[in-house]
Amino acid sequence: MIAQGLPASPGAACGQIVFHADDAQEWHKDGHKVVLVRIETSPEDLAGMSAAEGILTARGGMTSHAAVVARGMGKCCVSGVGSLNVSYKDKTVEIDGIVYKEGDYISLNGTTGQVYAGEVPTKAAELSGDFKELMDLCDKYTKLQVRTNADTPHDAQVARNFGAKGIGLTRTEHMFFEDKKIIAMREMILADNAAGREKALAKLLPYQKADFKGILEAMDGLPVNIRQLDPPLHEFVPHDLAGQETMAKEMGVSVEDIKRRVDSLAENNPMLGHRGCRLGITFPEITAMQTRAILGAACELKKEGKNPMPEIMVPLIGTLYELKQQKEVILEAAKEVFAEYGIEVEFEIGTMIEIPRAALTADRIATEAQYFSFGTNDLTQMTFGYSRDDIASFLPVYLDKKILKVDPFQVLDQKGVGKLIKYAVEKGREVRPELRCGICGEHGGEPSSVKFCAKIGMNYASCSPFRVPIARLAAAQGALECE
Amino acid sequence: MIAQGLPASPGAACGQIVFHADDAQEWHKDGHKVVLVRIETSPEDLAGMSAAEGILTARGGMTSHAAVVARGMGKCCVSGVGSLNVSYKDKTVEIDGIVYKEGDYISLNGTTGQVYAGEVPTKAAELSGDFKELMDLCDKYTKLQVRTNADTPHDAQVARNFGAKGIGLTRTEHMFFEDKKIIAMREMILADNAAGREKALAKLLPYQKADFKGILEAMDGLPVNIRQLDPPLHEFVPHDLAGQETMAKEMGVSVEDIKRRVDSLAENNPMLGHRGCRLGITFPEITAMQTRAILGAACELKKEGKNPMPEIMVPLIGTLYELKQQKEVILEAAKEVFAEYGIEVEFEIGTMIEIPRAALTADRIATEAQYFSFGTNDLTQMTFGYSRDDIASFLPVYLDKKILKVDPFQVLDQKGVGKLIKYAVEKGREVRPELRCGICGEHGGEPSSVKFCAKIGMNYASCSPFRVPIARLAAAQGALECE
Repeated sequence: MIAQGLPASPGAACGQIVFHADDAQEWHKDGHKVVLVRIETSPEDLAGMSAAEGILTARGGMTSHAAVVARGMGKCCVSGVGSLNVSYKDKTVEIDGIVYKEGDYISLNGTTGQVYAGEVPTKAAELSGDFKELMDLCDKYTKLQVRTNADTPHDAQVARNFGAKGIGLTRTEHMFFEDKKIIAMREMILADNAAGREKALAKLLPYQKADFKGILEAMDGLPVNIRQLDPPLHEFVPHDLAGQETMAKEMGVSVEDIKRRVDSLAENNPMLGHRGCRLGITFPEITAMQTRAILGAACELKKEGKNPMPEIMVPLIGTLYELKQQKEVILEAAKEVFAEYGIEVEFEIGTMIEIPRAALTADRIATEAQYFSFGTNDLTQMTFGYSRDDIASFLPVYLDKKILKVDPFQVLDQKGVGKLIKYAVEKGREVRPELRCGICGEHGGEPSSVKFCAKIGMNYASCSPFRVPIARLAAAQGALECE
Repeated sequence: MIAQGLPASPGAACGQIVFHADDAQEWHKDGHKVVLVRIETSPEDLAGMSAAEGILTARGGMTSHAAVVARGMGKCCVSGVGSLNVSYKDKTVEIDGIVYKEGDYISLNGTTGQVYAGEVPTKAAELSGDFKELMDLCDKYTKLQVRTNADTPHDAQVARNFGAKGIGLTRTEHMFFEDKKIIAMREMILADNAAGREKALAKLLPYQKADFKGILEAMDGLPVNIRQLDPPLHEFVPHDLAGQETMAKEMGVSVEDIKRRVDSLAENNPMLGHRGCRLGITFPEITAMQTRAILGAACELKKEGKNPMPEIMVPLIGTLYELKQQKEVILEAAKEVFAEYGIEVEFEIGTMIEIPRAALTADRIATEAQYFSFGTNDLTQMTFGYSRDDIASFLPVYLDKKILKVDPFQVLDQKGVGKLIKYAVEKGREVRPELRCGICGEHGGEPSSVKFCAKIGMNYASCSPFRVPIARLAAAQGALECE
């Protein structure tokens, strides 16, 4: 072992060191297995992270970008290895005086946070023997189903092999970071009128449809819950001059125009800003395009004899009227798609419950929602008033002084956030007794949190693929403790 | 009338145009009455805003910096006048083709948002005649008292003349922006260890004590609720080179060191970051200094035969243990101060309820709090997940599409935020029946919100000085509607 970091995402990985996301993609294309080594990762590294076997970072905790994305991808990650000295310029990393170069082999254990030099052989995890027997036993007692969070057909398949009963959360935003999609996405955001947005969205539609088709196919016969676009638009636009020049040329406007538009998207508190359904309400054409892509994919699959079960989820709802308005847009787009394909697919429309006000007014929101999916990451942020990105400045002191026993982004806070969730489940079912309730935040794979969800009568928990087995065990334990 | 803007803070103002906060201070010192005209204002303009008769801005809504601070100061403000073309360089403002220069007279009506050229005579508002009779009638029926939000002896006095029964919120942060205080404050923040902070805090102590003494004296015999330091430290440090050089010289370190420290304070979502009691917990010496200043001032006044009634409020509590820890620091500092002065002053320790989790766990928090003060600005931010600084990008569409009927930062949202407040009042009083509950957000001066507070049994509402009469009327109406 050459270093110890945080066990940010379980599993094992072995490959050749690369330092840039672009290199990870290129080496991967050439048939190499690579481990992406970074000081820290950002959304622009997504394609490279996806191409790598594992991710190793010098900075960042259990909820850093690298950790969260890797868990989402079901990809091994070790984060926060302080002894790593990365030089992007020299393409080297020095650990305890020894220098490792690009192309050198390195191995990670994401379950323990250990880092090894050279090639340590790995094998794919599988559900067999005693493990399978235990999981079957769990199924006998559990009432809460386990779904997975998956953004790609591959992740969906991995989770399905681990016994996931569907997808609880497909995020559409990661899909936009690949190749040509990001150009069209940026064009859509930087357009200054609806016509410009429509034009760019028309380019995005086939990409999105292909993405959704792959996922729906991998989960054939099981429900797939797809969330409409959620993050602030600022995250997608180019902040570097080269990227801004590309967009200026693409769109036939000046670099100054692009720069001004990029700057105008900056927010003081983006987590509380123009995101989630607020995007869909101000730009309904985005909601319409995504609906067309989801249901278009479903129609094609149905024609091919498959059984797609799409669920369309509206994020960041805080008021009943937001959901009503988005539902109208979705239903209108659905009608068009079904007319176009000459076929209909059953689908549901639900909402994230991740804003405290949504939980507090759950009885109103349930009148328009077929299901609730509790987004406990945001719900924890807003219920505590903690920014997940900024908590590092005081969390260590809080843990040290025993003000918090655990990081509430890791383990669901039952006294506060949990109270809100329980209230929302009860109030929602008062008006809609069959209301399906699930959880899709990071807590969906944390045992004590899953048990809590089982005990308050949730229908499912959704977690990253490799956490499916532990969630199934916790769900069964929760059911037994209730008897 | 030459322009129409938003009625950002009521009252009238007339004076000579100045464009910079520094100029406002200088002209004011020379005996001029000035109106500060800005594109928008920032915390660094505070001293200038305080020196001006009124404030006029080209940008910003009813909850912009200029509007909120002006209301807090009880100072007339017209904001968001789109037809204003301000040139800081030429020191001119052009309105509909006519150019007004520095020194020209201008008049504002903050109650209607109207702007006039030249000197329109004004007179001080007073409580007399029919107005007084109406207010006396209100007192006969009301149960909810009206306090004021005031950060200076002058504001306290104005509000007292309007019938305020104490101070519901004294913010200590504005005090730090004057002259030498900001240097000492910056030194405290930029110090990289507790000893450095203690040294800077010792310099701040006499300034703070003098500030608190003035306010406690103006409100002699009435309660004064003082909030411990609340905003993110980033707001206080210099972001310009000149300011950074001053601090480097003052502290005997390099400009690079200062720059690095300033940069390290940047946050992705400062509203959800290292602020409020999180500052007091990570830097208990700040809480201790402020306690010494408050109670030192009170001891001095008591020795002078006065009757100071300080209340010390811990902001941004989300868990019981935060309050417990801060209370220990306050009680320890109080013991020291009383020993030093050889005299004791009665005081109370309470908390803001402004984080949803605090409201949800009110029965726990009330075990340690003598009173609850509902900070409805932050509570609205977090319950809705709206950043007050960023809402402008979607609020107009929300109002237009009737998703929101009103701006929830103006009018308290009774269905969501109000439900949380009602729950917290009830739960808090279950464990502490005598628990005093009040509101100190912007809503404390908005009639429908004040009525709501009266109906759920709150003890007081606190608002900016010039809103005291309307709040008194609303409080009486609320009491009558309950009968």
